[in-house]
Amino acid sequence: MTIESASKNLVDEFRSRTTLRAGSLITTVFGDAIAPRGGTVWLGSLIAAMGEFGINERLVRTSVFRLVQDGWLQSKQIGRRSYYSLTGEGRERFEQATQKIYGEPVPSWDGEWTTILMSGVESATKDLVRKELGWLGFGSLSPNVLAHPAPDMAGLDLALERLGLAEDLVVMTGRTVRNESGMRALVQDSWNLDDIDARYASFVERFRPLIKAQGKDANVPLKSAFLVRTLLIQEYRKVLLRDPQLPAELLPTGWHGTAAYQLCRNLYQAVYAAADDYLTQTMETAEGPLPPPAAAFMQRFGGLQ
Amino acid sequence: MTIESASKNLVDEFRSRTTLRAGSLITTVFGDAIAPRGGTVWLGSLIAAMGEFGINERLVRTSVFRLVQDGWLQSKQIGRRSYYSLTGEGRERFEQATQKIYGEPVPSWDGEWTTILMSGVESATKDLVRKELGWLGFGSLSPNVLAHPAPDMAGLDLALERLGLAEDLVVMTGRTVRNESGMRALVQDSWNLDDIDARYASFVERFRPLIKAQGKDANVPLKSAFLVRTLLIQEYRKVLLRDPQLPAELLPTGWHGTAAYQLCRNLYQAVYAAADDYLTQTMETAEGPLPPPAAAFMQRFGGLQ
Repeated sequence: MTIESASKNLVDEFRSRTTLRAGSLITTVFGDAIAPRGGTVWLGSLIAAMGEFGINERLVRTSVFRLVQDGWLQSKQIGRRSYYSLTGEGRERFEQATQKIYGEPVPSWDGEWTTILMSGVESATKDLVRKELGWLGFGSLSPNVLAHPAPDMAGLDLALERLGLAEDLVVMTGRTVRNESGMRALVQDSWNLDDIDARYASFVERFRPLIKAQGKDANVPLKSAFLVRTLLIQEYRKVLLRDPQLPAELLPTGWHGTAAYQLCRNLYQAVYAAADDYLTQTMETAEGPLPPPAAAFMQRFGGLQ
Repeated sequence: MTIESASKNLVDEFRSRTTLRAGSLITTVFGDAIAPRGGTVWLGSLIAAMGEFGINERLVRTSVFRLVQDGWLQSKQIGRRSYYSLTGEGRERFEQATQKIYGEPVPSWDGEWTTILMSGVESATKDLVRKELGWLGFGSLSPNVLAHPAPDMAGLDLALERLGLAEDLVVMTGRTVRNESGMRALVQDSWNLDDIDARYASFVERFRPLIKAQGKDANVPLKSAFLVRTLLIQEYRKVLLRDPQLPAELLPTGWHGTAAYQLCRNLYQAVYAAADDYLTQTMETAEGPLPPPAAAFMQRFGGLQ
């Protein structure tokens, strides 16, 4: 199978899903491809690109409108053309997600946990905290205790500020000194690792044909490269953003997140340049084609070559 | 008021209590006076000494019998006389209590907490753990979390072993990194500090007349010294064993435990030697009077002079 037909299968499979979400895919294209290349695009060229995934013009317009309302994008009219750019806030949010999505797996762990005590907080507030800090990977060691072995502390501080709970919740750091194996059992119960592992396994399953096909093609067709790169990141980030990113020491044996990361890195490495060429040819700004990717782009997945 | 009449008032007040517990007072005499002086005494001389507190012979015999059943004491018949000695276990238990009762207040704190996670343990077991570790001063930061800022770790390990929970409970050590003042508020809620503070205040109230009277008498009558020393430790240990012994940094301002410690140390310093002379004159072993106190005795309250 060539990568062209493998990518066609991928797009067909994507289109066949009842849960196809245009907004989510447009967010991926913005975060993965447009943000590092200036962050602005002409709506017409975005509509054309999204059409390749079977998303029609009306759906692109509605989705983009919603992203404006949610504060991610802003629009600017020049002549008869609308240009969409990331807002300051949207850029910030993308940067946070970028660190998580394209970052390398957690390096070796120093054994230090961060725990959050929710005693004395109302029960509705606790639910909210659990949900919000869940995005940062915190799990519930007990009804009043959230924990993470290697959290993003700046992200935690931001979240506590935003929730208005910086003076209500107590944050501690510390290590297990008795019953390490009991702690491992608690970890199994506190995060839904089985579910995340299954999602990683199915991601690997889905993209393995692409890695195989890519090995055979010396030159990847530009459009296929763009389709593969976009759907690769779309699917990978959907699992990754649920992943608490625990250090290897705390993961079950045979954890599929490792294979998923490696597959994603290898396939991205194989298609990113051709996909960028496709974007140069098809995406327009008011000043012409998209500028080349910023220097930081080349740091993705531990360094692209 | 002389110390003789002040000690008489103290004994009268003690005798008037409806909750007078002979076993508890005999335990105090054993732990405070007999344990450091060989640990064995003729029942007849113990009965005579307890009579000074208004405890009759029958009550002493019943109490001593109970202490034997509970494993604290063992008896030995020589001729027509019964001698009571601490068992190995009783000596061990006394030594643990001795460290707590006569030790100096917790020195400066390094900010490190010890927390115990009880997740995944049945609720009846949790109640038991809370009660047992409560004796070591642990408080409940939340239904599943016990904590202490400076626990006796050897005592904790022993307790977990004894409860058969060393492989069920996870123990962590760590420090507060956000919201130190929230942690102080949690401390207020987690230990019944107001109640303990009130008990210390009432202890100070009760023994202040003795300190005043002692200041006037150059020579304390031996029997008064024994009565005062025994009731002093009896009352002090009753409060102290409820005290979680938190470091000064975590205590409310005006904490009466500090005054109680100082009063207890000063009064003990003033009467211990005369009380020991009384014991030498009145308490008998099979080999004659009690031997002099062991060297460790002189380390009580940071060093007796």
